[in-house]
Amino acid sequence: MNLKFCFIGAGNLATYLSSALYKKGYNISQVYSRTEASAKTLAIKLNTEYTISLKEIKNADIYFIALKDSVMDEVLSQIDFHNKLIVHCSGSLPLSLLKNYSKNYGVLYPLQTFSKGREVDFTSIPVFIESDSKKNEDLLKEIANEISSTVLVLNSEKRKLLHISAVFACNFVNHLYTISSEILKSNDIPFEVLKPLILESALKVQEIEPLEAQTGPAVRFDENIISSHLNELKGNKGYEELYNSISKSIFEHHKKLR
Amino acid sequence: MNLKFCFIGAGNLATYLSSALYKKGYNISQVYSRTEASAKTLAIKLNTEYTISLKEIKNADIYFIALKDSVMDEVLSQIDFHNKLIVHCSGSLPLSLLKNYSKNYGVLYPLQTFSKGREVDFTSIPVFIESDSKKNEDLLKEIANEISSTVLVLNSEKRKLLHISAVFACNFVNHLYTISSEILKSNDIPFEVLKPLILESALKVQEIEPLEAQTGPAVRFDENIISSHLNELKGNKGYEELYNSISKSIFEHHKKLR
Repeated sequence: MNLKFCFIGAGNLATYLSSALYKKGYNISQVYSRTEASAKTLAIKLNTEYTISLKEIKNADIYFIALKDSVMDEVLSQIDFHNKLIVHCSGSLPLSLLKNYSKNYGVLYPLQTFSKGREVDFTSIPVFIESDSKKNEDLLKEIANEISSTVLVLNSEKRKLLHISAVFACNFVNHLYTISSEILKSNDIPFEVLKPLILESALKVQEIEPLEAQTGPAVRFDENIISSHLNELKGNKGYEELYNSISKSIFEHHKKLR
Repeated sequence: MNLKFCFIGAGNLATYLSSALYKKGYNISQVYSRTEASAKTLAIKLNTEYTISLKEIKNADIYFIALKDSVMDEVLSQIDFHNKLIVHCSGSLPLSLLKNYSKNYGVLYPLQTFSKGREVDFTSIPVFIESDSKKNEDLLKEIANEISSTVLVLNSEKRKLLHISAVFACNFVNHLYTISSEILKSNDIPFEVLKPLILESALKVQEIEPLEAQTGPAVRFDENIISSHLNELKGNKGYEELYNSISKSIFEHHKKLR
């Protein structure tokens, strides 16, 4: 518990992760962000200091790097970590990316969607760990176990596939919510009426395998409805194409099972 | 409350709707299904009689027709409704479909996904009403208000678009859950770890507009991740295509907003 944690990045992920650690009594000794407002806001939350200069990053025991994947290399190459443990939080990037910047490195990837202003119970968030050595892995596991009830060790290749599956189940799903809300909006129907359906669909697969939970015209091979829906969507090429390709995919999946 | 309701169809929708009405004290006087097991199971639940013969359907005040859209016409043409109120429960079919079979007709469409074995609180399910006359509309509204706290009058054209939006937000979403579970399964990662993310994604849009809630590589225009994900999915043409088309759609949507 005497470890000093430095957070590089102050976005949503950094905010939620550092706050969870802080609540458990860990010492966040410094926050870095390019954007002063973000750095300051997070530093106040964590009762600590901040900097917007990479040169002013102080010594710490663990550096948590919660940056956009695309700027990771550029930022890390400017910091001297004195071979302390550096940990990135990305689903997509491999562990090996870090080996140029320290002799001790690891990954701590919390699988959740973080949005400003939403409280999330960190305990229920699965956390995936990977590290260069057993010693660092054990340390990261110990820390992760403090904030989450599900901590798993997973290599970079599998973490990437986990991330892809999360893109389908979360990012892509949310986009379908967006499309449905736009269809409603352009017909003066409040999005409100879809909310119970959205929630029930997510609750259902907490108990039933999604493959078994599939309902709707595509799984019933109801060509009349499908073609009438496609006809209705003709005014929006993007919607029409998505409707068609997802229906086809459902059809192909369930054809095998018949 | 002295009205006699007959249910034509004994599938999931018929079961949930008739049970909700029965619990409110309505008299379900008869259940018809082609399949004896289904008819019998539902009849026992509703403490009533059943038949598997269209000729044995008895007189009732309201006939609720909860059949697959594709068999609707074929079944209805074989029943004499004596011009009593007949009500279908389909999102896609127009009200006008019923005018050949009775002088009194309407639609009562509950917007939810029903699966065997799952308890659903009917009160929270929005119910959409349409009818041939003000008198019948009022009667259906009165009945729907007994079982649901959200009852709206909606014409056939808008109901169809509502149904399409539900296909996106529920059926298509569930298919994305299926794909994500398959990606995990083929990498020996338990689907369990995705469940909190799935639930949070659905909870988030109960409060935030889905357009604002969008996260992930596509909305960040992170081409590195997208192309690395597509590369990873190369072994499965179906997944690759869906990943590509949904990412593109997200990109197109959010490009306008930048």
